[in-house]
Amino acid sequence: MSDVWISETLYNGWRQQFRVNRMLAQTKSAFQDIVVFENEDYGRVLMLDGVVQITERDEFVYQEMLTHVPLLAHGAARNVLIIGAGDGGVLRRVLQHSTVERAVMVEIDGEVISLSRKFLPDIAGDAWNDPRADVIVGDGIEYVANAPDASFDAIIVDSTDPIGVGEVLFTDSFYRHCARILTDNGLIVNQCGVPFMQADELRDTSARRAQFFPHVSAYVAAVPTYVGGFMTLGIAAKGEAPGQHDVSVIRERARKAGIIEGCQYWTPEMHVASFTLPPYIARNLPGHGRKG
Amino acid sequence: MSDVWISETLYNGWRQQFRVNRMLAQTKSAFQDIVVFENEDYGRVLMLDGVVQITERDEFVYQEMLTHVPLLAHGAARNVLIIGAGDGGVLRRVLQHSTVERAVMVEIDGEVISLSRKFLPDIAGDAWNDPRADVIVGDGIEYVANAPDASFDAIIVDSTDPIGVGEVLFTDSFYRHCARILTDNGLIVNQCGVPFMQADELRDTSARRAQFFPHVSAYVAAVPTYVGGFMTLGIAAKGEAPGQHDVSVIRERARKAGIIEGCQYWTPEMHVASFTLPPYIARNLPGHGRKG
Repeated sequence: MSDVWISETLYNGWRQQFRVNRMLAQTKSAFQDIVVFENEDYGRVLMLDGVVQITERDEFVYQEMLTHVPLLAHGAARNVLIIGAGDGGVLRRVLQHSTVERAVMVEIDGEVISLSRKFLPDIAGDAWNDPRADVIVGDGIEYVANAPDASFDAIIVDSTDPIGVGEVLFTDSFYRHCARILTDNGLIVNQCGVPFMQADELRDTSARRAQFFPHVSAYVAAVPTYVGGFMTLGIAAKGEAPGQHDVSVIRERARKAGIIEGCQYWTPEMHVASFTLPPYIARNLPGHGRKG
Repeated sequence: MSDVWISETLYNGWRQQFRVNRMLAQTKSAFQDIVVFENEDYGRVLMLDGVVQITERDEFVYQEMLTHVPLLAHGAARNVLIIGAGDGGVLRRVLQHSTVERAVMVEIDGEVISLSRKFLPDIAGDAWNDPRADVIVGDGIEYVANAPDASFDAIIVDSTDPIGVGEVLFTDSFYRHCARILTDNGLIVNQCGVPFMQADELRDTSARRAQFFPHVSAYVAAVPTYVGGFMTLGIAAKGEAPGQHDVSVIRERARKAGIIEGCQYWTPEMHVASFTLPPYIARNLPGHGRKG
């Protein structure tokens, strides 16, 4: 049994460690440190700049919730933009929706894509070859700045935390362009960290987005390797409030989109329940008074 | 800054580590190893046999959900039995319910109580001195074996995992006696671990309890230091199904019991939402078909 351990370096006083049964890749791209290794509890693990991004065993939680919730809250998304998500897991799940006609994925780091295709092939499956997929290695900020008005129904931002390469995805300028390139009923979702440890992330992102979107909300998911209780997925919409549907509406949309079976975390009931926030999280949203 | 770290020893390939800013107690009782230390992210932390039991900063999640959900699912609990929970946090929250006339707490390890009173005084507050509290240092198994029929409305089991001293709290004999000493509308709750890492715990406990209770269910809580996604709290009832109430019923019961304000995780909405289970958890409950 290997006695090599790798530590996540997010926090000062707490850390998670994984036993490295086999190191698969350890490299420095133009943007970040990339590590892929094999662990007995989580399968293959991808770390960027020392932070866990995805593991084979628990990826379903994050990816199902990051994808199915916004697409079904929208209900008729045909054009979807994905920023980041170089492992391809979000792309695969977006393309599971039969309603989607085009999925553009913009990942800044081509090395993440090629290492994921080599070492984490099951996460994207054959999504890379879907004729509806347009995979671009490029800068998401530039992409949204240059995209035409009202060209997407949904934007899914699967970024790192707002440090390093992901930082620009948490700015006013980015959100302004996102609002511009979304259709009238469009919406955007992005990960806002684990509020128990990183409450600023949800608070700042929500405040920024409230400048450009009438509806700013969040929903939660309990992701095993994003440690510290619930992680929040921030969601902002131009049309109707994204968390207002009841279970029967979501179930019917999911049935039409062809994704009602096969999920391990998402269900129509989980979709609706995930918009219920504990007070320690809700107080970080605009209009919830108790800023903490 | 201290460079001493303490590791949790639950799993083979994964571990969490806390920086120890100050070691407060490190002892071996008649039953287990006990450690209390101070950490910058979580405040004071109590570990038993190498496993995190409670931290000052996140205890509210576990304790609110372990207490308020069963008492409000019952709706009129007057006599409550607590097994374990030597830190006193469950006792404090049980006594917040004005409907409760008597709370008996049976903790096997007197050292846990005295170290908690010394180093974690805020967790129990002045619950120890409440005239409705009856704190017994003794064996929970023996206590339930000797208690009269129908003498409690609710039993809350705050045990360690089913290894070491807590193991007997996961047996047929224990659950048979619990069913016997509960009133006709009585219910029992206990922690069933983190199914992503410990699915057996929920599956085995649920199967055992289905022998003695007509309603066997579970609800979830995202506890920061019980790592691995949702932890499950198993709940079994003799009378009505415990997860069937809507938000307005729970809110009204909470208002009557005087606990509607001041929670940081529990709300009537969270109460109801917590019974919604992701498929990867639900399949471990009896009658859910997809055993995995």
